[in-house]
Amino acid sequence: MRKVVIGVMGPGNPEDDKTLELAHSLGEKIAQNGWVLLTGGRNSGVMDKASQGATEASGLVIGVLPGADYDNCSSFVDVAIPTGMGSARNNINILASDVVVAVGIGAGTASEVSLAIKAGKPVILLNAGREATKFFLQIGKDLVKNSESVQSTIDQIKTLIK
Amino acid sequence: MRKVVIGVMGPGNPEDDKTLELAHSLGEKIAQNGWVLLTGGRNSGVMDKASQGATEASGLVIGVLPGADYDNCSSFVDVAIPTGMGSARNNINILASDVVVAVGIGAGTASEVSLAIKAGKPVILLNAGREATKFFLQIGKDLVKNSESVQSTIDQIKTLIK
Amino acid sequence: MRKVVIGVMGPGNPEDDKTLELAHSLGEKIAQNGWVLLTGGRNSGVMDKASQGATEASGLVIGVLPGADYDNCSSFVDVAIPTGMGSARNNINILASDVVVAVGIGAGTASEVSLAIKAGKPVILLNAGREATKFFLQIGKDLVKNSESVQSTIDQIKTLIK
Amino acid sequence: MRKVVIGVMGPGNPEDDKTLELAHSLGEKIAQNGWVLLTGGRNSGVMDKASQGATEASGLVIGVLPGADYDNCSSFVDVAIPTGMGSARNNINILASDVVVAVGIGAGTASEVSLAIKAGKPVILLNAGREATKFFLQIGKDLVKNSESVQSTIDQIKTLIK
Repeated sequence: MRKVVIGVMGPGNPEDDKTLELAHSLGEKIAQNGWVLLTGGRNSGVMDKASQGATEASGLVIGVLPGADYDNCSSFVDVAIPTGMGSARNNINILASDVVVAVGIGAGTASEVSLAIKAGKPVILLNAGREATKFFLQIGKDLVKNSESVQSTIDQIKTLIK
Repeated sequence: MRKVVIGVMGPGNPEDDKTLELAHSLGEKIAQNGWVLLTGGRNSGVMDKASQGATEASGLVIGVLPGADYDNCSSFVDVAIPTGMGSARNNINILASDVVVAVGIGAGTASEVSLAIKAGKPVILLNAGREATKFFLQIGKDLVKNSESVQSTIDQIKTLIK
Repeated sequence: MRKVVIGVMGPGNPEDDKTLELAHSLGEKIAQNGWVLLTGGRNSGVMDKASQGATEASGLVIGVLPGADYDNCSSFVDVAIPTGMGSARNNINILASDVVVAVGIGAGTASEVSLAIKAGKPVILLNAGREATKFFLQIGKDLVKNSESVQSTIDQIKTLIK
Repeated sequence: MRKVVIGVMGPGNPEDDKTLELAHSLGEKIAQNGWVLLTGGRNSGVMDKASQGATEASGLVIGVLPGADYDNCSSFVDVAIPTGMGSARNNINILASDVVVAVGIGAGTASEVSLAIKAGKPVILLNAGREATKFFLQIGKDLVKNSESVQSTIDQIKTLIK
């Protein structure tokens, strides 16, 4: 039976510590809810912190890597999927997630939010910043929600996967 | 000898006629400058109109299609490249362009602008709208330029490929 | 900590029942050894039978699907990864496996064995048939091994991942 | 109007000079027939020689590169399409060709012949060697033809694109 997969996307080098703390807490709560965590798999930033949080809560973590091997894979990933496709793997991150959460923002994350909207996947923005939030709410219409906290993000996921 | 390739990205269903007119005129001027036009290849919106403009000016048009066959290919494409990868082909559109021009905005186009920034490719925004322009100038720093006209876009391309 | 992933590739419509029986037994033993099973994810042929075997032995099954959604996903897959890339996903199947086992042969499977050789991944052929075995042993040199049984396949995997 | 595209696939390091001579002559004749040549784009082996032949006959050459930039691009490519996908780009080589010709054989080329069969594209084998020819004729059925010369290959292409 296919498990529910929640994709957490976010920059490898976020500018603020708050983004990392949110990623860690979100990973933890995703695991506590019995959902699989899927990230971009690298050992940095939001990917690494969310994976650490999920691992500490005994969750299953899938890392879909841009490279062709296991270099730069987060040590908190259970199953690594090297794709060898660079940023084209961002579309797989989206297609493989039941719900996408973007924590923080950067160019890679912005591509993932955009691809999610294109694919018709629900996206929740957490700490994306004022400009990103305005823009994506505008182009994403009903698919994009803003969230103010990890708890509200989890509540929104529960509604979306019902 | 490798030719200069200018990628023109934009929505298949833009909301305003101005976007289509700009795409047509831009395609024409790209061809007149001896550059190859690369688009997402489909027979709609910005892709189709830019291809038509370039074809009318006797330019070479490459269409990198999301599908696995020639369905929905613009009739103004000289060489069609079906990829069978859906929106993951957006990253190829970027990597294969010396300069990327986004005409109008939509979710797919936003993913292409984001992927261009991620890949370090210069992007010119033409008629992207206020929110998109603010957001991409913010995350794209020196890679992203706004343009007010086709002529200024062509001038910017000339500077970028020098 | 990254888990060992064994990729089992094989036709969706094998010509003989023996291929399906081998796939089922191989999936079971992969799970019993604590390895993750990765397949092409579809609900037919070798993919489905290997996934069933692993599931019956309480293993973890990852299905890397060619489509963009969950259509035709095996009911024995735990984590589905729709890629939306068609047969280009075959390269991901290879890159994401520590060892690749081809059970039976067909055009898709032949592409996977070829891509494994190209990527330098070890491949074990099980019931591939005379012509395929001769050809792949010839081009694959030390990377390709033939196997006569599920047990010998498991023994070879143990040596390879040591 | 979409032009006819003939894909020429073959090893970057073929073992015999005959393979390179065939590739050069085939590229030349493809151009003389007014068809576009598509290759894997690199500056070595069959890709380079076929591109040289087509260029010398004033043909148009498209190179679909595995890398994300123009490194190792053949100097005989007119339009380079960096994909950043590694060997997953082999599937694009196939989908973008009206007819595929494999000159010589190697692991990458074998993957392309296999993917062509999978995609239902006609493939012509030229100097593939005894084992490869037997194997691919077996699994490819009506899609795969063997050819003994460049001229017979051209004749077969003419029949196929009629």
